[in-house]
Amino acid sequence: MIRLDDERARSFLADDDLNTLWPNVQEAHEAVLNKTGAGSDMLGWRDLLLDPDDALLEDIEATAARLRRDADVLLCLGIGGSYLGARAVISALTPYLQTHASDHSPSDDAPEGLSVDPTAPPEVRFAGHHTSGAYLAELLANLEGKSVFVNVISKSGTTLETALSFRVVREWMQDQYDNPSDRTIITTDSDQGALNALHETHDFYKKYVIPDDVGGRFSVLTPVGLLPIAAAGIDVRSFFYGAVSACETISADDEHAAFRYAALRYLLLNDGYDVEALAVFEPKLQDVGRWWQQLFGESEGKEGTGLFPTVVQYTTDLHSLGQYMQQGQRNLIETFLMPETDPGSLTIPETADDGDGLNYVAGKTMSDVTHAAYDGTAQAHTDGGVPNMTLRFDEIAPGPIGELLYFFEHAVAVSGYLLNVNPFNQPGVEDYKREMYDRLGR
Amino acid sequence: MIRLDDERARSFLADDDLNTLWPNVQEAHEAVLNKTGAGSDMLGWRDLLLDPDDALLEDIEATAARLRRDADVLLCLGIGGSYLGARAVISALTPYLQTHASDHSPSDDAPEGLSVDPTAPPEVRFAGHHTSGAYLAELLANLEGKSVFVNVISKSGTTLETALSFRVVREWMQDQYDNPSDRTIITTDSDQGALNALHETHDFYKKYVIPDDVGGRFSVLTPVGLLPIAAAGIDVRSFFYGAVSACETISADDEHAAFRYAALRYLLLNDGYDVEALAVFEPKLQDVGRWWQQLFGESEGKEGTGLFPTVVQYTTDLHSLGQYMQQGQRNLIETFLMPETDPGSLTIPETADDGDGLNYVAGKTMSDVTHAAYDGTAQAHTDGGVPNMTLRFDEIAPGPIGELLYFFEHAVAVSGYLLNVNPFNQPGVEDYKREMYDRLGR
Repeated sequence: MIRLDDERARSFLADDDLNTLWPNVQEAHEAVLNKTGAGSDMLGWRDLLLDPDDALLEDIEATAARLRRDADVLLCLGIGGSYLGARAVISALTPYLQTHASDHSPSDDAPEGLSVDPTAPPEVRFAGHHTSGAYLAELLANLEGKSVFVNVISKSGTTLETALSFRVVREWMQDQYDNPSDRTIITTDSDQGALNALHETHDFYKKYVIPDDVGGRFSVLTPVGLLPIAAAGIDVRSFFYGAVSACETISADDEHAAFRYAALRYLLLNDGYDVEALAVFEPKLQDVGRWWQQLFGESEGKEGTGLFPTVVQYTTDLHSLGQYMQQGQRNLIETFLMPETDPGSLTIPETADDGDGLNYVAGKTMSDVTHAAYDGTAQAHTDGGVPNMTLRFDEIAPGPIGELLYFFEHAVAVSGYLLNVNPFNQPGVEDYKREMYDRLGR
Repeated sequence: MIRLDDERARSFLADDDLNTLWPNVQEAHEAVLNKTGAGSDMLGWRDLLLDPDDALLEDIEATAARLRRDADVLLCLGIGGSYLGARAVISALTPYLQTHASDHSPSDDAPEGLSVDPTAPPEVRFAGHHTSGAYLAELLANLEGKSVFVNVISKSGTTLETALSFRVVREWMQDQYDNPSDRTIITTDSDQGALNALHETHDFYKKYVIPDDVGGRFSVLTPVGLLPIAAAGIDVRSFFYGAVSACETISADDEHAAFRYAALRYLLLNDGYDVEALAVFEPKLQDVGRWWQQLFGESEGKEGTGLFPTVVQYTTDLHSLGQYMQQGQRNLIETFLMPETDPGSLTIPETADDGDGLNYVAGKTMSDVTHAAYDGTAQAHTDGGVPNMTLRFDEIAPGPIGELLYFFEHAVAVSGYLLNVNPFNQPGVEDYKREMYDRLGR
């Protein structure tokens, strides 16, 4: 269940603003449901939830089982939507400090003389998401002697950052393993593009398909996100069905929080607020913020409109951006993203001497402190002139995270229609690429 | 040498805007030099460079040598300015994937039966910078069996996040080691505050002083930053003297790039641009961006003014925020932060089949690709209506990074005076704290 506390944001609006806008919100919602809005040929991210493909989930689980058995590391190559969704979910749902599989005791069934712990999921590492040679060189040096599998994720196969990394990684794998193709999984178009061409010659271990009607930033519930998430040891079925459940609920409830979220942002943008900060307290949620940033920035930021999306991690950023949030230019709105239950906790011990004067919080948990900080911040920022609201979800677990991601997908579709833009295209992304390719002599 | 390419930003301004403003810039610069502006009792960050304390640097190097000998991990507890500076420099100047000291062969002189490689610097880990109990619990579990030293950094000793973590960590160390006080370094006020009180009872291994006239966000060149940086194996003397050299140069050259940077941002803010994105291509510089974000956000963001500072990491964020940067609301300016030389590099291999169609870049380096991406982005964003400029520095090495940090410190002081605010206070940071403490029942 996702809830939206919006009283604080509404206090910055006129009483009937939301009511006046509501017919437009309903119209936007209908356009999503009935595929009658701009870009409605790109609504496959809903179709795949309305008619779940359980055979695909089973297949992904089987591949994840092989990776658990045979891989120390799954190296995922992708950028933008082929990267941020998997990273968001894996960061949220795995420990901060992964115990590296390769530090474990050797097992008997390790391939090619390498030791793999069959009970531990492989460590998931990302590359192909920028152009740093230093990063790629250091990463490959670090992977020497480990059992590495690769998942390259690109619809065209020619996305420069990803394709270059794949080229370098393929050469490295040739030197490392007898049969690198058997360690390579491609996630790409059904039949077009460079990865399919390479597949014909190299006969890679596995191929997954990115549906034509799902854009990159909406692809976390396709194999683009699902395979890395499953490989990381996360219950991918619960995650997927969390999204299915949100899709059903939101489609059927035209008063759902998703619509109020979209509407309030729109009204505040019209009032001159041009930056939205998504605020998390649990650091594991920061990469969910990065995924949200692409989803909203790329869907709304066109034709000179949209809120600039940024992510703040509290309380640490209260000690860096807190001054600006409290008293800087009043161009900001803030959305707190709060689980009802924090992952794990830790009770603050009492000390005999109370040398630091903190015995007054002894016996409370760190989670109690987090909630006091959240309440205090929401109040202080309201007083300081920052319209803010709070999105609450049950807990940082596969199902609720699946729900949350769908919530944002549906909200941004409605929001795009309110702004009168096509929320599913990204025409501006080509401009720098054209300039870059010119300079590279393509 | 720091250079500013500002032609693209200037093309968004009227021809004589900069000339008209220049007398104010000079006046601001004089106020910094002569300590005649608002908050001028907090200019100690300049004094410590004008009269370097070599004995302190030696002392810090000696402590770092002991940590190298005896520690697997230095756990730094701090938040805001007691955290972001050290992290920025360490991220910039150490490998992406640290080889953990504890993975090395045991040495003979390890304390208390723990194995430490005396040739490797300890791994530096951060805590006390937020309220996540999950993080702290997982971190401590991960540190079991390692030789851990702690550096707690807090002027008052009562900063909640840091003090709570220190309380938990002290209890953990009691269980782990015979003499935890001998593993504890405090960095704090000269004589006031909770850490000095604890020091009286516990007689910690070492104490460093935070000068009274240096604010948190300006403290990276005091022991707050210097000790963790030295412990990480970085040449702290070159780093410090890089800053000394920038301080001399900028103080003597009233046409320096630092003044043009401050002036152009100010003029663009006056023209309605209210967000500045600091753009880096090398991921190692991202944490320099986070430090810059506090420095500028906290110095400028008061009395309803200041640019909202955000950090983008390209090319990855061109695939998430790139659409917004190119075609969203035209409220953005962009500053590229570019080393003349990239750290390491990697040549793109040729392949026989050219299956990915990338042989046209074979033989080039990843750095060549980065520069094409940078040039292309600067051009595309200029065409798209984003005023942008480029700060260039020599390379990602201790001296040039020291120069760069001072450059920003001086620039933000001038910028604050242009905005007619006190760049050295942060009155708004107390508001959420007051609300939080109320809720915790202090």
